[in-house]
Amino acid sequence: MKRTHLFIAGLYLLASCRAEEGLNFPTYDGKDRVVSLTEKNFKQVLKKYDVLCLYYHESFQLKEIVLEVSREAHGPHWPSDRGLAGFDEEGSLYVLKGDRTIEFDGEFAADVLVEFLLDLIEDPVEIINSKLEVQAFERIEDQIKLIGFFKSEESEYYKAFEEAAEHFQPYIKFFATFDKGVAKKLSLKMNEVDFYEPFMDEPIAIPDKPYTEEELVEFVKEHQRPTLRRLRPEDMFETWEDDLNGIHIVAFAERSDPDGYEFLEILKQVARDNTDNPDLSIVWIDPDDFPLLVAYWEKTFKIDLFKPQIGVVNVTDADSVWMEIPDDDDLPTAEELEDWIEDVLSGKINTEDDDNEEGDDGDDDEDDDD
Amino acid sequence: MKRTHLFIAGLYLLASCRAEEGLNFPTYDGKDRVVSLTEKNFKQVLKKYDVLCLYYHESFQLKEIVLEVSREAHGPHWPSDRGLAGFDEEGSLYVLKGDRTIEFDGEFAADVLVEFLLDLIEDPVEIINSKLEVQAFERIEDQIKLIGFFKSEESEYYKAFEEAAEHFQPYIKFFATFDKGVAKKLSLKMNEVDFYEPFMDEPIAIPDKPYTEEELVEFVKEHQRPTLRRLRPEDMFETWEDDLNGIHIVAFAERSDPDGYEFLEILKQVARDNTDNPDLSIVWIDPDDFPLLVAYWEKTFKIDLFKPQIGVVNVTDADSVWMEIPDDDDLPTAEELEDWIEDVLSGKINTEDDDNEEGDDGDDDEDDDD
Repeated sequence: MKRTHLFIAGLYLLASCRAEEGLNFPTYDGKDRVVSLTEKNFKQVLKKYDVLCLYYHESFQLKEIVLEVSREAHGPHWPSDRGLAGFDEEGSLYVLKGDRTIEFDGEFAADVLVEFLLDLIEDPVEIINSKLEVQAFERIEDQIKLIGFFKSEESEYYKAFEEAAEHFQPYIKFFATFDKGVAKKLSLKMNEVDFYEPFMDEPIAIPDKPYTEEELVEFVKEHQRPTLRRLRPEDMFETWEDDLNGIHIVAFAERSDPDGYEFLEILKQVARDNTDNPDLSIVWIDPDDFPLLVAYWEKTFKIDLFKPQIGVVNVTDADSVWMEIPDDDDLPTAEELEDWIEDVLSGKINTEDDDNEEGDDGDDDEDDDD
Repeated sequence: MKRTHLFIAGLYLLASCRAEEGLNFPTYDGKDRVVSLTEKNFKQVLKKYDVLCLYYHESFQLKEIVLEVSREAHGPHWPSDRGLAGFDEEGSLYVLKGDRTIEFDGEFAADVLVEFLLDLIEDPVEIINSKLEVQAFERIEDQIKLIGFFKSEESEYYKAFEEAAEHFQPYIKFFATFDKGVAKKLSLKMNEVDFYEPFMDEPIAIPDKPYTEEELVEFVKEHQRPTLRRLRPEDMFETWEDDLNGIHIVAFAERSDPDGYEFLEILKQVARDNTDNPDLSIVWIDPDDFPLLVAYWEKTFKIDLFKPQIGVVNVTDADSVWMEIPDDDDLPTAEELEDWIEDVLSGKINTEDDDNEEGDDGDDDEDDDD
């Protein structure tokens, strides 16, 4: 695997130091690894690093320079559908890699960002060679994945697939095989690419093979919003911004907990039954992925996150309504959940109905944190 | 589930603020939630909070007070095997809960610590009620787990089990069932407790049921070091300190990667074949769990963590020897790994042999990070 230089701007690693050798957390050595971009140095900086992580901060008056850098980086390949508008959000973080610009829209934490960057410097397509690797591929169920069968790395269709993969790296995983046995096990024909929606048993074969890069990109974009999607630290804000008519159906379930696992299985059943409904996309949040937000969510939504929950959240004001689950030993069935979801989608259950009751709304600053 | 008050001393939550409602990271509100312990206030503080998280910092001259608090907290129940000695490590973090003191020996990061505390305020025993929950229980393979079958929550044997669980919370998971169907599915007899070593197919039934709290604690302590164990952020330093004759056999494998998954399956096979060897305990590290350490480990051990690795590490000086895996498409078989491990255990492969070769040792500060 080709290793590229990785340059992180704006990120200091400061961690406590322990005495055990081989397990020490590196302490900050005082070296400044943040390069301040100026009109003078940006071309040079851009040439020096294969991957450039750019933190855009208004107070440094970097705006114009950032735009220049982007133009420079992309030259004639600058994707017009992305445009320059993406760069004008203060506090945003962009990664420039080759002729691509990727916005990091995840949790602003060192470990999340570093993992994002590590995923980005890997090859965009993972090759599946053996039956054990097929098993590894099949185990991935909570995110979108694609797999294609090609003659060899030199195949023009594989190259188109690889180019398409780069558009979605590191958010969506692309796999390929050149092995007939593996292809047979996955029921893949030559030059066919299968698209797996999260939590679904069967993939969709992308129609009209072989495909161009553009056709693959188009297909993925059209199918990018699954019926059940997991909120991930690495793209949590992107997911949250992709609401349906101003609301999100949100389910909290801790997968490592038996009740949470059971509830997630029921949610999967609901998702499978309703995979063709474009108006439904449930956001599943595993509290284990966001320990620092648990207390905040419990206060904002007035719920207990030690047990499974499902509700509707208005993304504008975070007002919410939650399904009554009186006992976590008696979770709703898939049918009961589907009825509840139907009432949400029809507007029968909504976040506004209770707003005028008893005047208990809008007092976000109530002193209940003693 | 009973909710207890949680008090965190020494932890500030500072995170970036985003505009999306319901997903905001709380910003620091300026309130000081760290209580400075003094001789005057410690009794009062101790009464006020069910869980007290204590950061022990020499410069605050807290040592004597910490010892006082501990004595106060534990009174006649102060466990003599733990002693007061555990409190004299500067920079250590202790959690006082009821009559127990738990040292936090994990990564010093806010999310890891908060998850540790959240796990600590849950019930020490998780109840398994249904077949779906059995499935959830069975899916846990990478950590020690115990499950017992009892008549009811009132059973004295269940109470002993619960008391034993508190000794190991939150590091080791204890489950129980009062349901005959669940017990049958898990082949559990009344009042029997089964102990599951990580990655093993079959549990060990703890002999001579019914058990007292002490017998259960004793058994778990004796079996606490598995043949294959995962390095976890929440107790990474404890695991690392538990070396075998000054060395660790360390395997790096990224489970979400097909090669890493395949290598882990081979490691499991080796562990199953050698589960009765008390001299063998392989530490498996998933680089995904420690994104901030990847670059540091690659430099310290001079290996590429984008592919599976296994080696011997001397815990005193972090000197290491790694198995040659020329191609990640051609991983060693379980037999080849067992031969290699045998050579490590017999001393044929060790970290010292190459120390006098070519004088390339000990130059930790070589300038190779350009």
